[in-house]
Amino acid sequence: MRLEMHKERVTFGQIATAIGEGGGDIVAVDVSQASGTTTIRDITVQMSDSSHTDTIVAKLNALEGVKIINISDQTFLMHLGGKIEVQAKMPIKNRDDLSRVYTPGVARVCTAIHEDKSKVYSLTIKRNTVAVVSDGTAVLGLGNIGPEAAMPVMEGKAMLFKQMAGVDAFPICLDTQDTEEIIRTVKAIAPAFGGINLEDISSPRCFEIEQRLIAELDIPVFHDDQHGTAVVLLAGLLNAVKVAGKRLQDCKVVVCGIGAAGIACSKMLLAAGVTNLIGVDRAGALVRGETYGNAAWAWYAEHTNPHRLTGRLSDVIEGADVFIGLSGPKVLSVNDIKKMAADPIVFAMANPTPEITPEEAEPYVRVMATGRSDYPNQINNVLCFPGMFRGALDCRAARINEEMKLAAAQAIASVVKEDELSEHYIIPSVFNAAVVERVREAVIRAAVESGVARRVRGHRQEE
Amino acid sequence: MRLEMHKERVTFGQIATAIGEGGGDIVAVDVSQASGTTTIRDITVQMSDSSHTDTIVAKLNALEGVKIINISDQTFLMHLGGKIEVQAKMPIKNRDDLSRVYTPGVARVCTAIHEDKSKVYSLTIKRNTVAVVSDGTAVLGLGNIGPEAAMPVMEGKAMLFKQMAGVDAFPICLDTQDTEEIIRTVKAIAPAFGGINLEDISSPRCFEIEQRLIAELDIPVFHDDQHGTAVVLLAGLLNAVKVAGKRLQDCKVVVCGIGAAGIACSKMLLAAGVTNLIGVDRAGALVRGETYGNAAWAWYAEHTNPHRLTGRLSDVIEGADVFIGLSGPKVLSVNDIKKMAADPIVFAMANPTPEITPEEAEPYVRVMATGRSDYPNQINNVLCFPGMFRGALDCRAARINEEMKLAAAQAIASVVKEDELSEHYIIPSVFNAAVVERVREAVIRAAVESGVARRVRGHRQEE
Repeated sequence: MRLEMHKERVTFGQIATAIGEGGGDIVAVDVSQASGTTTIRDITVQMSDSSHTDTIVAKLNALEGVKIINISDQTFLMHLGGKIEVQAKMPIKNRDDLSRVYTPGVARVCTAIHEDKSKVYSLTIKRNTVAVVSDGTAVLGLGNIGPEAAMPVMEGKAMLFKQMAGVDAFPICLDTQDTEEIIRTVKAIAPAFGGINLEDISSPRCFEIEQRLIAELDIPVFHDDQHGTAVVLLAGLLNAVKVAGKRLQDCKVVVCGIGAAGIACSKMLLAAGVTNLIGVDRAGALVRGETYGNAAWAWYAEHTNPHRLTGRLSDVIEGADVFIGLSGPKVLSVNDIKKMAADPIVFAMANPTPEITPEEAEPYVRVMATGRSDYPNQINNVLCFPGMFRGALDCRAARINEEMKLAAAQAIASVVKEDELSEHYIIPSVFNAAVVERVREAVIRAAVESGVARRVRGHRQEE
Repeated sequence: MRLEMHKERVTFGQIATAIGEGGGDIVAVDVSQASGTTTIRDITVQMSDSSHTDTIVAKLNALEGVKIINISDQTFLMHLGGKIEVQAKMPIKNRDDLSRVYTPGVARVCTAIHEDKSKVYSLTIKRNTVAVVSDGTAVLGLGNIGPEAAMPVMEGKAMLFKQMAGVDAFPICLDTQDTEEIIRTVKAIAPAFGGINLEDISSPRCFEIEQRLIAELDIPVFHDDQHGTAVVLLAGLLNAVKVAGKRLQDCKVVVCGIGAAGIACSKMLLAAGVTNLIGVDRAGALVRGETYGNAAWAWYAEHTNPHRLTGRLSDVIEGADVFIGLSGPKVLSVNDIKKMAADPIVFAMANPTPEITPEEAEPYVRVMATGRSDYPNQINNVLCFPGMFRGALDCRAARINEEMKLAAAQAIASVVKEDELSEHYIIPSVFNAAVVERVREAVIRAAVESGVARRVRGHRQEE
């Protein structure tokens, strides 16, 4: 922040005190201008919590002789003008270059693709480019904030795609929330893209949109909020059961919060061999025989809960080995955990406030994971989507199937070596460079074995 | 090309002769491998015309002891994997960066945009990003080759946008040729973009698509094939009349080829003060009173040809000062030119073969321009679109109006100084660095004066 101080009326000590009392930590002070009676200083303040800004501003305004000229915020500064750009891979240096990359020379390249459409993969950006598509209806914990406000997330995702896996991703934020219109639009823009990453689209529309696009397009379509979460959850769980000395297929698993992510995680767990799986939502356990207005719940009740348990979370949690939370804050109590089987595993992934805090749960659980970066064992989608799409693009997969997701989960889990595994280290860091390559290789292998790869060598550089 | 030569059966002289006879010019020879009896050589050959490749290959295959291992083509090599990429503007170096550009920090930025939608311009890529949209129905001279085959052109355009004007452009090639579907799709993806460049969409659909999008979106929409051509044509003509000692408003102008570009050029000329304008198509001169199936032609006949001339091109060309060709090869004859007024101006812009070649026309014209880079006075859209969008984005224009197009044409013309002007230099080179900045400034000024600028300072860096 830039402040103008009236030297005779206020001391720097008073200012420093005000900032400290407001919850800020002064990191640097630069004098940018000084006259006889006033000084202008740039003060860099570290905040534990951005909501403290208002407190500090109020305290400074209360001081006589201080004028706040400007406040910049590091986070906002990083977003100014957007976070990504489109670059040419080579400069156009002269008329020869121009006639090759543009008219008239480009006509031969167009004709080659027109004669053999599969050449679009070798002669355009398609083979390395993913659309990050959102309608802005379910952005982070913010809900339906619209396409413009969703852009910063999609741009951030595009940055991660490029930095982690060399994938060119471009944000497409849609000014429509109509299911059919979204499907039509994504299909219409698909020619330029090698894959579609659906993001932050609210349930239940996300199911229909994803299923229809998978069926109607010949490129991979992946709703990251569902499957990214499911893959990383399974990766963590594969290692958690090892630490706890359990076998996944023997575990009683309770999934709490049967929305898009909860359903995708449950399907992933069933695919991984879990049989005793019970889903719980606000209305209690989902059980066969009940009627549900929601087609996804009806399917869920039909395919889970083999012992037809009924009741609320605190009832069905009894004897459970694993709790998977994709619901809301403080849904799980210490008493619930106490009812679980020995060495309980708790994945409390509600964001930003988990179903139970690690502090409360710690004394009673064997392994604990959350969605947060400030506790151990963070279940973070960033571990999945870059390597998943890198692999799918490299082997030109027609879609991303269950086999590829399972393989990705196992690959992520495998990055933590057996002798490193512990209660506090079941999942690699998002900055672990081994993850993307491990996931990529596993995804390609699974795609080839399950018959969806259309290009078997799968090395990035070759053509 | 990489060749394997059997030393005892063929000499390099024979190979060089074959290449020379085939129309190629050897630029470099590298021996990449040599054994007792064979040598592998990489030979770089410059071709006057790419169609000669087959001739050379046939001649080499006819030689004994020569095996062609591989032929690479510089143009195709430049397109491998596509010509553009998406880059992050900054690296994500650590967990702090990650939490700022992505969750959880990004949530504050999203919220700021949700609360004030105009912030999408400062906090996302929107303010510097243009969609280059095509349905692949009228690509170069190739016609309806589809969205995949159109991609190389749109990528080339994106390169030019960035290199010439720092604009981030992304290709959107549409898998639909339905007018309503295209309008719906472009509207749906508009939130991320600050402008829409329509490209290579066939007539008459392009009119409806452009008009509707201009009316229904609040960002500039510009069909470059129409207006880019019109702006650059006018720029050239403004200087051509100076060279020929004519006044534009006094000229009799014949426009030949009343398609999308012909109509746009005519409208631009009317806006610039031309009154005696006659349009000619295959059916002859368009004239008031006739009935035309095509709404654009009906409008055209109503607003041009004040003396109600009838007949074919060779009739109405009589006494014309200016011929503007946007039709097809060899439409204009030397005899036609001889019928024109003194010091005739001929813009023969059909591509790749003009309405009359400069060689034929030269003895009879005062000023001649074409669409080709291998003759003087090239009318090339690259002179317009980068600066046009740079200006429109910088002043956040709601649309691109007639005033801005006229200003751009005058700005392009002004780059050629009065004392440099000549029959062979009426329009700057596409590599003239002054053009973009000159166009940008003129466009901003015109946008401000005509009331479509929404951000008046219009300097790139400020916010």
